[in-house]
Amino acid sequence: MLKLHDLELSGNCYKVRLLCALLGQPLDIMPVDFLGGAHKQSPLIEKNPFGEIPILEDRGVTLRDSQAILVYLARKYGGDAWLPTDAGSMAKVVEWLMVAENEIARGPNDARLHDKFGYKLDADAAREKARRILGLMEAHLAKNEWLASRRPTIADIACMPYVALSHEGGISLEPYPAVRAWIGRIKAFPGFIAMPAL
Amino acid sequence: MLKLHDLELSGNCYKVRLLCALLGQPLDIMPVDFLGGAHKQSPLIEKNPFGEIPILEDRGVTLRDSQAILVYLARKYGGDAWLPTDAGSMAKVVEWLMVAENEIARGPNDARLHDKFGYKLDADAAREKARRILGLMEAHLAKNEWLASRRPTIADIACMPYVALSHEGGISLEPYPAVRAWIGRIKAFPGFIAMPAL
Repeated sequence: MLKLHDLELSGNCYKVRLLCALLGQPLDIMPVDFLGGAHKQSPLIEKNPFGEIPILEDRGVTLRDSQAILVYLARKYGGDAWLPTDAGSMAKVVEWLMVAENEIARGPNDARLHDKFGYKLDADAAREKARRILGLMEAHLAKNEWLASRRPTIADIACMPYVALSHEGGISLEPYPAVRAWIGRIKAFPGFIAMPAL
Repeated sequence: MLKLHDLELSGNCYKVRLLCALLGQPLDIMPVDFLGGAHKQSPLIEKNPFGEIPILEDRGVTLRDSQAILVYLARKYGGDAWLPTDAGSMAKVVEWLMVAENEIARGPNDARLHDKFGYKLDADAAREKARRILGLMEAHLAKNEWLASRRPTIADIACMPYVALSHEGGISLEPYPAVRAWIGRIKAFPGFIAMPAL
């Protein structure tokens, strides 16, 4: 069975749990003692030398990085539904996977790490970055139902969690109605599961 | 023909030029007046609302983000050679595309932006992140010829430029012999093209 080294409060771990739920893939969840630093010690540090979670294990494959894990799950268990295979459509999904890895990580995610978990970060800079990417997403979602395609893809799964958790970093989604409507459409998926504060 | 909105000194633009050269794909290069802010104005801002380059145009498809563009080119013109299609192999490539978008961007690339182009950034923090990712890459490349597979992929193309430009951000590659050997293997590709300072 798929094994996930997991932290319940991590949006990056949650996206993996969410896609597995939507795909109907059972998941063996292994809670990681994050406060105790288990992810930076053996045996997890051998599975992921970057010292981060989530880590997914499946049939001898060990993967790090939540976006890469979504690609794996979509390709392995989702047919063409969550990650289209033609060049242009796949690249459009990857554009938004990069937004999850870059602008959303350095924006709403960093602001939340500062406010909720006490990370030493420039919270004002993170909130400024958050407002910039939320503005770009608002403009895009005002004209498009989903981020990368006419149907939902792993782009939406990758970008949603830390956007939906913006309030935990001191950022209101009030000025972004199209973003809020998009989160609502994802929450309405059959098989949707939530995480704390979502 | 493929059209690239380009800046010669950008490592992100260079990776697109490099993969096109390796694929034998002719490229119509449109230099962008970056200092004049052309990428933040019409008509480029309509092509990429993020206000960044590179931007690739091909047969009605317009793409932003260098990593997404590499995925497009590999899928469209590279068969299985540069981006394998099976789930595990593709995800291993994506792991390193994310390193290019995250750790390498926030490490050696940010240090170079500070030192060479005067960006207001925390250069010490960038150099610390650079040394961390270079150490991780050194350990990986001491045991593997290529980042993501037994053969070169777009993972190598995505990660190489800003690593090879580390000296422009005040970071020596002297302590990383496996990284230097890997850069040398990429430079030996048939059809390899360079960029300034590389």
